[in-house]
Amino acid sequence: MIKRTGKYTLTFQDEINITGYGSVAGKKESEGPLRDNFDKLIYDAYAGQKSFELAECLFQQEAVILALNSAKKKADDIDMIFAGDLLNQCISSSYGLKEFDIPYLGQYGACSTMAQGLIMAAMSVSGGASNCSACVTSSHFCSAERQYRFPLEYGGQRTPSAQWTVTGSGCCVLEKKSKGAKIRHATIGRIRDYNISDLNNMGAAMAPAAAQTILDYLEDTGSSPEDYDLILTGDLGFVGSKCLYDILSADGVDIVGRHNDCGLMIYNRDKQDVHSGGSGCGCSASVLCSTILPDMHKGKYKNILFVATGALMSPTSSQQGNSIPAIAHLVNISTQ
Amino acid sequence: MIKRTGKYTLTFQDEINITGYGSVAGKKESEGPLRDNFDKLIYDAYAGQKSFELAECLFQQEAVILALNSAKKKADDIDMIFAGDLLNQCISSSYGLKEFDIPYLGQYGACSTMAQGLIMAAMSVSGGASNCSACVTSSHFCSAERQYRFPLEYGGQRTPSAQWTVTGSGCCVLEKKSKGAKIRHATIGRIRDYNISDLNNMGAAMAPAAAQTILDYLEDTGSSPEDYDLILTGDLGFVGSKCLYDILSADGVDIVGRHNDCGLMIYNRDKQDVHSGGSGCGCSASVLCSTILPDMHKGKYKNILFVATGALMSPTSSQQGNSIPAIAHLVNISTQ
Repeated sequence: MIKRTGKYTLTFQDEINITGYGSVAGKKESEGPLRDNFDKLIYDAYAGQKSFELAECLFQQEAVILALNSAKKKADDIDMIFAGDLLNQCISSSYGLKEFDIPYLGQYGACSTMAQGLIMAAMSVSGGASNCSACVTSSHFCSAERQYRFPLEYGGQRTPSAQWTVTGSGCCVLEKKSKGAKIRHATIGRIRDYNISDLNNMGAAMAPAAAQTILDYLEDTGSSPEDYDLILTGDLGFVGSKCLYDILSADGVDIVGRHNDCGLMIYNRDKQDVHSGGSGCGCSASVLCSTILPDMHKGKYKNILFVATGALMSPTSSQQGNSIPAIAHLVNISTQ
Repeated sequence: MIKRTGKYTLTFQDEINITGYGSVAGKKESEGPLRDNFDKLIYDAYAGQKSFELAECLFQQEAVILALNSAKKKADDIDMIFAGDLLNQCISSSYGLKEFDIPYLGQYGACSTMAQGLIMAAMSVSGGASNCSACVTSSHFCSAERQYRFPLEYGGQRTPSAQWTVTGSGCCVLEKKSKGAKIRHATIGRIRDYNISDLNNMGAAMAPAAAQTILDYLEDTGSSPEDYDLILTGDLGFVGSKCLYDILSADGVDIVGRHNDCGLMIYNRDKQDVHSGGSGCGCSASVLCSTILPDMHKGKYKNILFVATGALMSPTSSQQGNSIPAIAHLVNISTQ
């Protein structure tokens, strides 16, 4: 069962644990600091498929297979899978997962989808709707770039605040078991729109949503940043992380010493020409599943906040002159 | 709490009721047989906004306000809202709902989204994650047509199996209360792909998914079509409904006498030039909230199956030559 704590936070009263996980990443990610952490690297942007979109489907498939193996499960053991991605109509998920024949619930939280999927999976297991749920998400630089920005051949200039879409995927399997990393709390985000309309500055658009969700969580649980080994945002990047510090400090909350961002971790910004850092659904998903969860099992972290952020605009809404609404969902993961 | 029944079906053990609902529809829908049932009609395709996309946002807003009023709730009383639509990146939902400041979980099930939202909302309330949840979805002929098919000015010919996207929205509020229409069971769909690639024949692409979910549900619950007053599919239309009968009859299941389809109910096919019938997320949502739920309260139906179907392709996946995967989620709603 789930109990509500404060106005926005859920407390999972059972032992809901991540009992398996898998990560896949691409060539550029293989050249970054986390290269040795990914379960699988695929160097070909097409992954042997006919299109970048089908390649992204394959990334999701591989992540699911790795997570199932890690949890010692077959596809048939999974009662429901929560999946989403950045492509129009979430086709990486629907085409990528159809062969598994798992009851399927499509999610759309933009780059916050991994946190949303974890919350939905934990909710389904804790409430009794599922014995074993999975969540997965992905992104691909080439499929995202041509859908959201420019044809790849165009070679457009990027501003310093722009981010680089991660080619990667991550999947988690959740069960009611007393082993693994436990989902203790979750805070579902509210949409925040600070009237930012620069598509090359998603970090600034998403930071207010991250700040709001973190503040909601801390107030609801009566905890403070010092209670956590790590406060990990999804893909705010360099610019967005600075914005987050500024917004939180106005509320007297300081997370600087214990904050990191998946978009800053996955690339070497000095050498890899990614400007403000990584982004995309696959960014937080692949960093969580390749690096953070293994580090928790090794005892490096005992109690973390995973706060994935998403920018909820579309090219159409931007072309029509609208600002960028954003959301952040928070999951408290603990091995204590 | 929720109990699993059979392999694919959930049984809600608490009294999870739809305690409020609202529906909005557009001009063409106001000329159809359900004209007097909608809570609100908006004749202007722009709804006073600058774009069709912003008009669709307004349809969702109106549906939420109507549902909140009907449930005697304020936005602040809603612990979480499950929302989705057909537009790229689900912008009707994110832009439409941001002012309500309700914790937001974006869903993508194409035209199955209303059933998916009902399942997620029921799951959240039954498991204790929420005291009061809402779900909403919408579609708009003009925003869908130009995104999925042709510019409106083009005036393309339509084939006999083509469907007409409903301009409308529906919203439900769910609580643990012993009044209203009760969500008793739900079956989460598995993706079905029968290799149909004709974008003008979505009904045929979606019928196998509807058949699979209905068969899963009947087997899991040990019930038969005769146990229900109405088996209501989302938007199979005329062609898809015939396909559904054929597929089910091969399994010895006959639903003909008690089946109806929201896409067939919302328009007068003889007079309104909609070919195979209505479609879109807003089709099943607005028919459910305008006609079916009120009819249940009047005692016309006591026990129904609501089976919304979704085609999970995108224009990109179709242009790349892929077939159309589809899904159907089922909700058993009862006043008994």
